[in-house]
Amino acid sequence: MTDASANEPGIFEIMHTTRSMRRLKPDPVPNALIRRILEAGVSAANGGNMQRWRFLVVRDPTVKQTVAAYYRRAWKEDAVPRYRAGAPARLEGAAPTRSTGSSIYPAVQNMLLAARALRLGATLTTLHLRFEKETEAALGLPPDVHSYALLPIGYPMGRFGPVARAPLADFVYQDRWGEPSRDL
Amino acid sequence: MTDASANEPGIFEIMHTTRSMRRLKPDPVPNALIRRILEAGVSAANGGNMQRWRFLVVRDPTVKQTVAAYYRRAWKEDAVPRYRAGAPARLEGAAPTRSTGSSIYPAVQNMLLAARALRLGATLTTLHLRFEKETEAALGLPPDVHSYALLPIGYPMGRFGPVARAPLADFVYQDRWGEPSRDL
Repeated sequence: MTDASANEPGIFEIMHTTRSMRRLKPDPVPNALIRRILEAGVSAANGGNMQRWRFLVVRDPTVKQTVAAYYRRAWKEDAVPRYRAGAPARLEGAAPTRSTGSSIYPAVQNMLLAARALRLGATLTTLHLRFEKETEAALGLPPDVHSYALLPIGYPMGRFGPVARAPLADFVYQDRWGEPSRDL
Repeated sequence: MTDASANEPGIFEIMHTTRSMRRLKPDPVPNALIRRILEAGVSAANGGNMQRWRFLVVRDPTVKQTVAAYYRRAWKEDAVPRYRAGAPARLEGAAPTRSTGSSIYPAVQNMLLAARALRLGATLTTLHLRFEKETEAALGLPPDVHSYALLPIGYPMGRFGPVARAPLADFVYQDRWGEPSRDL
């Protein structure tokens, strides 16, 4: 189970079949696989390659149960009524929150990976938002619609090669913030 | 050039070699490739599968030049001084903006794809943020550090299969908001 890459489907098939999987077996996931997932995570685009992200691997059942109880409450009180009303996932209109980009940046990352698979160069950038009104006017956006990223795409002048990232241990905690992960 | 998948590298190699490519040739990118990139984009995780995203394919040189001029100004006035100062890409602290998640949700998406490639089930969810203080306390987060996503990962009970998305034409505009793309 630690190496599934031998018979791995292509990236387009993977992207087109990555649905949310909400029903999971209780079997623990081997650390080797969690490690590969984290390595994939830190290879992603991030602003100025500052790598300010941290990842918390939670195996402690007490922590899980505490978070799960709040999660179930949020599901009942917030998500169910919202989905029933057909209300938007806050991509337009209201003031941004931390999770505002959670329904668009995953799509941006899929597009960056697709470009790479097709040997096209691309960059995720948000810097134009410093002149939000001016650039959104140039793109013809209505006042209640906003942009989240620019992706200039073309044939690259440079070569593809490994991304530069610090070691995983700099970013990964176990169960609680600040506790180093011994097993990964 | 329209089908690069025959000799396509595996998804892990793709993720580990997807760097920002800022120097691009002036050669136009075929519509067939842009279409595959957009199809990859709309296969990504998004809240409640509401698919509120829209994608604007800009080929019009006038629109490009207008946006580029503001972009260059933002680069000089904002990005260069910030990188020089080693300042963070706004992942912690300050009030969230629309682009706040742009340095973490791409990593989340890479992890979802990695999980899928390893035959593990996973979900991107942010619903716990409705009880932000309580759940962040359970995870031991310091007051100036915040969470952006939960990814429950495990062996799936269900089967992998195609994601359900509306046709591209519902989401893609050409050059300016609202103008249908004729070529994709």
